[in-house]
Amino acid sequence: MSGFFGADLEVINVGIPAFADNIRASGAPAVNLEWRPPGDGDPDVARALATLINRESVEAGNQTAFARYRGAQPVLEGVAAAGETVPGMGERTILHSGPPIDWTRMCGPVRGAIVGAVLYESWAADAARADALIESGEVVLEPCHQHGAVGPMAGIISPSMPVWIVTNTAHGNKAYSNLNEGLGKVLRFGANSPEVLDRLRWMGTVLGPALARMLEQMGGLELKPLMAQALHMGDEIHNRNAAASSLLFRRLMPAALKSGIAHEELEAVTDFITGNDHFFLNISMAACKSMLDAASGVAGSSLVTAMARNGVEFGIRLSGCGDRWFTTAAPVVDGLYFAGYSTADAAPDLGDSSITETAGVGGFAMAAAPAIVQFVGGSPDDAISSTNEMTHITLGRNEAFTLPPLDFVGTPAGIDARKVVDTGITPVINTGIAHREPGVGQIGAGITRAPLACFTQAVVSLAESLEADSSPGGD
Amino acid sequence: MSGFFGADLEVINVGIPAFADNIRASGAPAVNLEWRPPGDGDPDVARALATLINRESVEAGNQTAFARYRGAQPVLEGVAAAGETVPGMGERTILHSGPPIDWTRMCGPVRGAIVGAVLYESWAADAARADALIESGEVVLEPCHQHGAVGPMAGIISPSMPVWIVTNTAHGNKAYSNLNEGLGKVLRFGANSPEVLDRLRWMGTVLGPALARMLEQMGGLELKPLMAQALHMGDEIHNRNAAASSLLFRRLMPAALKSGIAHEELEAVTDFITGNDHFFLNISMAACKSMLDAASGVAGSSLVTAMARNGVEFGIRLSGCGDRWFTTAAPVVDGLYFAGYSTADAAPDLGDSSITETAGVGGFAMAAAPAIVQFVGGSPDDAISSTNEMTHITLGRNEAFTLPPLDFVGTPAGIDARKVVDTGITPVINTGIAHREPGVGQIGAGITRAPLACFTQAVVSLAESLEADSSPGGD
Repeated sequence: MSGFFGADLEVINVGIPAFADNIRASGAPAVNLEWRPPGDGDPDVARALATLINRESVEAGNQTAFARYRGAQPVLEGVAAAGETVPGMGERTILHSGPPIDWTRMCGPVRGAIVGAVLYESWAADAARADALIESGEVVLEPCHQHGAVGPMAGIISPSMPVWIVTNTAHGNKAYSNLNEGLGKVLRFGANSPEVLDRLRWMGTVLGPALARMLEQMGGLELKPLMAQALHMGDEIHNRNAAASSLLFRRLMPAALKSGIAHEELEAVTDFITGNDHFFLNISMAACKSMLDAASGVAGSSLVTAMARNGVEFGIRLSGCGDRWFTTAAPVVDGLYFAGYSTADAAPDLGDSSITETAGVGGFAMAAAPAIVQFVGGSPDDAISSTNEMTHITLGRNEAFTLPPLDFVGTPAGIDARKVVDTGITPVINTGIAHREPGVGQIGAGITRAPLACFTQAVVSLAESLEADSSPGGD
Repeated sequence: MSGFFGADLEVINVGIPAFADNIRASGAPAVNLEWRPPGDGDPDVARALATLINRESVEAGNQTAFARYRGAQPVLEGVAAAGETVPGMGERTILHSGPPIDWTRMCGPVRGAIVGAVLYESWAADAARADALIESGEVVLEPCHQHGAVGPMAGIISPSMPVWIVTNTAHGNKAYSNLNEGLGKVLRFGANSPEVLDRLRWMGTVLGPALARMLEQMGGLELKPLMAQALHMGDEIHNRNAAASSLLFRRLMPAALKSGIAHEELEAVTDFITGNDHFFLNISMAACKSMLDAASGVAGSSLVTAMARNGVEFGIRLSGCGDRWFTTAAPVVDGLYFAGYSTADAAPDLGDSSITETAGVGGFAMAAAPAIVQFVGGSPDDAISSTNEMTHITLGRNEAFTLPPLDFVGTPAGIDARKVVDTGITPVINTGIAHREPGVGQIGAGITRAPLACFTQAVVSLAESLEADSSPGGD
């Protein structure tokens, strides 16, 4: 001990920084290693992690699930009315974003959008009667995710709305998303004025059928190469879709001219598509959904297959837990607000578009999209850091989606809930911000994080199910 | 002195590394600073630099010239037959890329392309008679640059070919370029087979007039915002134009549908444009030419206003020396060759497309286009280094063309011939590589450098003209 006290000590302190501070205050050098116990010290969570980490059935499940995600081949197959193509959609069903939620608890933009959908469907003559109809319980309100679908922001899909149909030809599953309405007063931000409904009717009667004819003429469109190309053109295909939308338009137009669409309809359709840099977003979302649904339901797998928000709750699903949701309060996004708005005006985080991050693009591929920082804040270096940080919580990389600024490595993909809880690093999400009141629209954009609580619940639940399976009474 | 020899010396050696090597060999540390005397030690060049550097009239001239370059507002105004719009083009004139050169000295691809143009114009019935006609001297062969025009590779423009017309509305000057034919067997690589001529005829009778109608419908198209947007989408708008071509198509199509172009013509035009990722290149070149012509002819200015190659010689122009060319042998590009080809098959550096680098894009904006390294070689870090290195030889930055990966600084722009000679850093150029035989086409791509000899000649000439002006007999 005398040698110990006599020598020059170099101290590394792990955890609570106060210990290192004291040593430094007494004049000796000390390095502090940031560390928190897994699950913030919650013994149940620590036990669950101990159950799941290095457990053979979890590793095997993850390998299967990740291979299914990576092997997915999403093909944009067509466009049809939701009621005719989305499985399990009843006559009076309206789908919304995020985990399940009752009408009475829904946020402003979602309520406004559901009222708009009721009016669009002519189930009620005005907003008051629409409200009454919904309150009567005669309209079934269910999450998009429950029907293989996804929608940005409010995410509203009603039976006569046209939806994109994406088939994952590798696995045989299908995914759906509504069509993007553009910016301004739009249903997905809760607006339901006559101009919004008129646009939806035009989308249902002209745009949707025209797109269906184009895709029929093309024989479908493979989405992975197009998404990969867009990642080489500064998109992260969540909040930046300028390249993907342009590439899509370049692919659609030659087919459009060959498909016999009436000239004046084609004129209107062309004006609409070329006027919207986010036209591809909903396709990107459906493609991601098709990749992740293929990876869903693999026993033991801790792969996250959905992250979604309804403006009140944030929810995730794990492959090994099937369709079950793990939810917590949705955060308010501390982003870049348009002039005159602040967090006080914002609805909590909203929409299914975080399916893109779940699939390794969006915030996970920000390194590919340095110019996005003009929209969501931060610097191009931050964008690269976001991508790099996500490697700590993912199962691997998606070699189909390479990132030029990082020397063409694949994007980090396949969120492992165990790693999220173990490291405390939560998934980064690029997101738009909706006004809390229906119909005001987008008031900002920013980078947010999926809340840790969803992942701890999921990990505990997965561990419980595996323990039950392997307990003496089980199997 | 005894103190000097007793102390530990830290040696910095400037120039010839052998001195530092000797010190290191004897066990002492020495840092070697790479340095070469300006102009590689040529006393005439050193004298010229001494005349030009910090000379008030040169600084003032450069300020004027650079401001004219930076203030340029290129607008894509229309498309018309070259013979009807390019100034000074006689009935039997054919324009080619690079500095002036006689028929007998021209490289294979340029000769093949000129024969093709003669056949296209029906000035001769077959290649042998075309050859004879050209040899008789009845066809005037002049550089594009002599007529405010630019063309990629062979750069051939004959009177009935359609050309893009770009007006720099800030300065009132116009620039021209031919239309991009796509890849494969094309005139600009010296091919002149019937399929090549048929395509040119279709471009002259269908594509050109259709584009003219679209642009008329649009009332022209401002190019700087589109080029700036493409730089945020992974293009450097020389060898990568995928984004710019897509953005252009998005702008053209709505106008095309409103302009009364016959449906089947529009179908063919759409197929052609959407099938060519380099469709925008020639527009980019004309825009750059319009920016630099505005900066030309400013007394005393050492700003480089053109870099161009004819496959035999590389030539540059200086603002302060007007239309005079300073030439040397064109280098063979040591790039990425397609399978089966090597430098032995390559024509020396060819084409006017280095007007893009002269205007601060292309190789100067490579930081914006990390994915280009898949085409021209190197790594994304090299791309950033190329851009950064060019700051040593440029007058400033172009704030209209910002580079996301470099935190949105403007691209280095305005090559100062003095700085090139003083530093020995020569301008970087991204380029395609043509086969030396006419008609084989592109055999590779790579990064090359403008040869220093052009710049030393230019600097000596500018210095002589200024000395003559300020000599007792002058003024």
